[in-house]
Amino acid sequence: MPVNTTPSYADVLAARQRVYRFLQPTPLHHYAGLDALVGAEIRVKHENHQPVGAFKVRGGVNLVAAMDVATRQRGLFTASTGNHGQSIAFAARAHGLQATVVVPEDANPGKVAAMRGLGARVLLHGRDFDQSRQYAGQLAEESGGYFVGPTDAPLIAGVGTYALEILQQWPEVEAILVPVGAGSGACGTAIVAKAVRPEIQVIGVQSAQAPAMQQAWKTGRLTEGEMHTIAEGLATRVPFENTQRIMRALLDDFVLVSDEALQQAVLHYLQHAHQLVEEAGAAALAAAIQLKDRLAGRKVVVIASGGNLGLRNLQQVLQTVQT
Amino acid sequence: MPVNTTPSYADVLAARQRVYRFLQPTPLHHYAGLDALVGAEIRVKHENHQPVGAFKVRGGVNLVAAMDVATRQRGLFTASTGNHGQSIAFAARAHGLQATVVVPEDANPGKVAAMRGLGARVLLHGRDFDQSRQYAGQLAEESGGYFVGPTDAPLIAGVGTYALEILQQWPEVEAILVPVGAGSGACGTAIVAKAVRPEIQVIGVQSAQAPAMQQAWKTGRLTEGEMHTIAEGLATRVPFENTQRIMRALLDDFVLVSDEALQQAVLHYLQHAHQLVEEAGAAALAAAIQLKDRLAGRKVVVIASGGNLGLRNLQQVLQTVQT
Repeated sequence: MPVNTTPSYADVLAARQRVYRFLQPTPLHHYAGLDALVGAEIRVKHENHQPVGAFKVRGGVNLVAAMDVATRQRGLFTASTGNHGQSIAFAARAHGLQATVVVPEDANPGKVAAMRGLGARVLLHGRDFDQSRQYAGQLAEESGGYFVGPTDAPLIAGVGTYALEILQQWPEVEAILVPVGAGSGACGTAIVAKAVRPEIQVIGVQSAQAPAMQQAWKTGRLTEGEMHTIAEGLATRVPFENTQRIMRALLDDFVLVSDEALQQAVLHYLQHAHQLVEEAGAAALAAAIQLKDRLAGRKVVVIASGGNLGLRNLQQVLQTVQT
Repeated sequence: MPVNTTPSYADVLAARQRVYRFLQPTPLHHYAGLDALVGAEIRVKHENHQPVGAFKVRGGVNLVAAMDVATRQRGLFTASTGNHGQSIAFAARAHGLQATVVVPEDANPGKVAAMRGLGARVLLHGRDFDQSRQYAGQLAEESGGYFVGPTDAPLIAGVGTYALEILQQWPEVEAILVPVGAGSGACGTAIVAKAVRPEIQVIGVQSAQAPAMQQAWKTGRLTEGEMHTIAEGLATRVPFENTQRIMRALLDDFVLVSDEALQQAVLHYLQHAHQLVEEAGAAALAAAIQLKDRLAGRKVVVIASGGNLGLRNLQQVLQTVQT
């Protein structure tokens, strides 16, 4: 599948045979405490239970498994704030390949350690993701390696498998809220939901402190945005063309939540679900609380997209938020 | 199956059809940071990913599904420090039954809220689990209800299904470390491991601040022990006869770890695996670290038996332990 195409529902279905060679379906759990917060029937899609702690690993294993042998052996290069890099590192190791991941200089140290633990070469370069991405692209070109972009079509098709699971686990679902960093999760979700039952509302969520993707979705213009969120998984400064195209066609809404609301949602996950969820991963719950009037009484899935919260961030959540 | 018998390997195999009607297998994940701590190949059995956050739910659904209709409809009574009660509440709700759970007066509030969220009637009575247990038995007798003991044979057979999963997920496993509260987890594990490959070492773990079960295992005498652990899941004062009998026959070793080591293990899970694990659930990892010389280079599974850590306990872990 060319990297910049729009994956189809059939591409997501086809991804299953590759994804489930390495991964198992994640649970969709219910917690009375979360229902009470939103006034709706909330179920949590536990992508934080994945082996690298985030949904992206579905995309990584799909992409690498679908690559031809000659391309694979050139070596994989990518850039990441952490979870995408872990995904590519996991997929590369599963296939005996070398991965190089460029991360921003202030990257989450737990994610960096995890990537190295998976055998990846990790280079700290750039102030933010977009700078790291440029450097990774340059390294790939210099060495003849293969550059994996964070929104390549096979990644979207792979992550879409969690939406297939949701529709099997809870066919009655009425709305799915999904955090947006580069947009692969929201695109995979919308491609599946709209193919199967178009009346399912799919709502993207980004931090108000990093709204580039949401602004592009609203305006149709791919302009750079401000970016100073604490949620590295949402920290996108330059919008991605292909995921924007898909989201503009398929998302029902795209909302912003404050970083404070993200931290509060992390705390709610700890308190009511006993789950460690990182700030970006808690964005969908934060949005559900913000949209409680609209969601009242509905059947709502929130994607807990990742759990890789650093200890320092956890301490901040426990200190700064009213318990 | 009479409640005080020893379940067989066949009973565990038979439990699968009931368990998987309500639950799905839990993952067995690997984290490089945990390997480094122990100097062994460590995989974590994620029973903290269960819908009620603990392994016990496997036993609850097995027990209730196997009950005859007349007995079920008398209503279920049990006592719990939290996770067993959630398990029975979950299983009762799944079958449309009423459950009454007696918990100690200082019970983990998150666990109490979760039981109520699952529709159980929760009564706070007694200073500790053993006092709550007496009261629950009395209530059951007065009302003609059915009392579920925390080590009833169908519970052991149900929880044994996680050991079947481990042997499928990692057939080469050499040692399994499992926390012991009432002992159902250790018994289920040992029944399966010894039936399939007796050379697998099965090691029980308890807190040195609540060593009644370990002392009974060492001495063969069921005497009451001191009990002042922070880990409510390990807080057993009066040993259980049936699980003792099984453990004395099948466990290879039974070790104690300090409450401080439990808190340190909770921190390791947060830091290296990004997982919220309660103190009792972290006992197996604490023991693996303590036994690192003996386990060096081996293939070791640690059971993360539960994740229901209260916010206050989490704050204590982050405050009191050297990070």
